Amino acid sequence: MAADYDLVIIGAGPGGLTAGLYAGRAMMKVLVLEKLVPGGQIIVTDWIENYPGFPDGISGFDMGEKMKTHMLNFGAVIETAEVQSVDFSDWVKKIELNDKTITAKSVILAPGAAPRPLNIGEEKFIGKGVSFCATCDAPFFKGKTVVAVGGGDTAVQEALYLTKFADKVYLVHRRDELRATKILQERAFANNKIEIIWDSVVTGMDGLFSVENVIVENVKTKEKKPLAANGCFIWIGILPNTEFLDGDVELDESGFIVTDPHMATSVKGVFAVGDARNTPLRQVATAVGDGAIAALSAEHYIENM
Amino acid sequence: MAADYDLVIIGAGPGGLTAGLYAGRAMMKVLVLEKLVPGGQIIVTDWIENYPGFPDGISGFDMGEKMKTHMLNFGAVIETAEVQSVDFSDWVKKIELNDKTITAKSVILAPGAAPRPLNIGEEKFIGKGVSFCATCDAPFFKGKTVVAVGGGDTAVQEALYLTKFADKVYLVHRRDELRATKILQERAFANNKIEIIWDSVVTGMDGLFSVENVIVENVKTKEKKPLAANGCFIWIGILPNTEFLDGDVELDESGFIVTDPHMATSVKGVFAVGDARNTPLRQVATAVGDGAIAALSAEHYIENM
Repeated sequence: MAADYDLVIIGAGPGGLTAGLYAGRAMMKVLVLEKLVPGGQIIVTDWIENYPGFPDGISGFDMGEKMKTHMLNFGAVIETAEVQSVDFSDWVKKIELNDKTITAKSVILAPGAAPRPLNIGEEKFIGKGVSFCATCDAPFFKGKTVVAVGGGDTAVQEALYLTKFADKVYLVHRRDELRATKILQERAFANNKIEIIWDSVVTGMDGLFSVENVIVENVKTKEKKPLAANGCFIWIGILPNTEFLDGDVELDESGFIVTDPHMATSVKGVFAVGDARNTPLRQVATAVGDGAIAALSAEHYIENM
Repeated sequence: MAADYDLVIIGAGPGGLTAGLYAGRAMMKVLVLEKLVPGGQIIVTDWIENYPGFPDGISGFDMGEKMKTHMLNFGAVIETAEVQSVDFSDWVKKIELNDKTITAKSVILAPGAAPRPLNIGEEKFIGKGVSFCATCDAPFFKGKTVVAVGGGDTAVQEALYLTKFADKVYLVHRRDELRATKILQERAFANNKIEIIWDSVVTGMDGLFSVENVIVENVKTKEKKPLAANGCFIWIGILPNTEFLDGDVELDESGFIVTDPHMATSVKGVFAVGDARNTPLRQVATAVGDGAIAALSAEHYIENM
C-alpha cells in the first residue's frame, strides 16, 4: 500500500508532539501538521506547575520548545499547514491541505480544544488573572478574591474548588437558577465564601498589570457594577477543534472525538489524543499519556495491515 | 466521616507520585506509601529517552528524584512501609501496615509491576544489555546483534520491532512452536534478520562491561552454546504487584487491576494507575496521565460522598 507517510499527526500540542516522538523513535515515517505554532494551548500558558518532573515549574513557551525539540530529535517532521478536510473512507487516508493532498497509512487526531471565550476583551488578561482552568491555576489565588463565570456543573464544581484557595468567590450567572446538579447547587449555597450574582453577565474587566475589577451587568435591570477581584475564571463551555472532521469519525454530543482505551476512533487506523477527545481531564500530563498510547496503536495497526 | 487521610496512595512510581502531586496541590490530605525507594521501576532504569520535555534524556534516578521533590513541594507526605493487606468493605478504607492500621476516604493503587525474570544472573546486566522493554530500549541497539527470549505475542511482536534497529535477532524459545498468533509467526518466519533457536532456554550470559555472550541450552539434547550478542530482551511475562489485593478489587486473568477511563476500580473510592492496571502501554508518560486523572477522580469522589 503506497502512502506518503506511515503516520500523519494533526496538531502539535503535547499530545501530538508525544505521539510524534514515540512514532519517530519507532522508525515510522511521520509528519506532524500544525496550523499555528508547535506547543498548542501551552504556549499561551504563562506557567505550568503540575507537569511531573519540573519541580520548579516551567513556562508554557519553554515546555512547548522542549517537546518540539525532543520530537524532532527522533526524526518526525513538522509542517505548518491547516487541514481543510480529511477522507478516511479508504485504507489510504487522505488529508486535504490548502495547496495539496497528502496520504498516510494511519492518522492521529490531536487538534486540541479551546475554552469558549466571553469576547469582552478578557484575552489581554490571560495569565494575568483570567483563567479557564481551576486545576491549573486555582493555587495562584490563595487568599484572593475571584470571579467565576457560568452556571453548569463545571462552573459550580470549579467555583467550589476555588474556595479551597480564594477567600471570596463571586459566581456570576446569566439566569436566575443554576444548571448544575442539585447536590453541587446545595453545596454552593451552603458555602459562605461563594456569593452568587444572579441574572448577570461579565461585560468587561480592568486593571493596570493584572485584573483589578470585573464589570458585571444585570441583564434585567441593565445596571452595571464593578466587582473588585484579582481573577476571573470563565467556564461557559469548551470547544473542540473538530469542525474539519465533518462526519469522518464519531464525535460525542459536544463534538469531542470518541475513543477507546487504545485511543482508537470509530475508523480503523485513525486515533485521537489530548483535549479534543472525550477525556475526563485536559492536562499536559494526560495528553502525553494519550500520545504514547496512540503512537503504539498506530504502529501495531500498520504492522498488522 | 473520620479518616486519617483524604487519600492514601500505595506506591511511589511515576503514577503514584503524579497522583500525589495533583492531590496535594488540590489541598487534599495525602499519604504515599512506598516499600522501597520513591521512583519505582524508573530508578533502576539507566536512561529515559522518551519522557516528553527532556530532549537530552534523563537518568531514571534523576527523574525519580525530580518527581518526588515535585510532589513534596505540594504537601503530600511519603512514608516507607509495606502494605500487608487492605479492607475496602466500608466507606472508610483500611490499610494494614506491619505496625499499624491507617484509614482513608479514598485510595489510589499504584503498586507497579515487574517483568518476570529468567533468574540466571541477568540482573547484573540490566541497563548493560539486558532489557525487558523494546519500546524503551530497542533504539540503543542499532546495527547490533541481540537475543530475544519468549514465544508469546509480546515476544514475537517485540522481536519484529527489534529488527528495525538490530542487524540480527536470535529468538530463543523453550518449545518447538511459538504461542504467538499466526500472523505474527508468519512475519517472524519471513523476516531474514530473525533466527529462531527452538527447544532452548537461556542459562547464562557473560561480558566484561556489558553483555557479550548469551548462553543457550537445548532442553532436549542438553547441549549448551554461546551466542555472541550485545543484548538480551526478556519477554516471558509481566507480574503485577497485586498479591496484597486478595480479592479486594477486580483483577483481570493476569492479575492486573481492572479500571475504567476515570481510573476507577470495581470498588467505589478506590482507583488504580500505572503498570499494575490493565493498560495498553507501560511508560512514564502513560503513568503520569493515569496519576493526574486518578487524583481528580478521588477528589470528585470525596466531594460527592
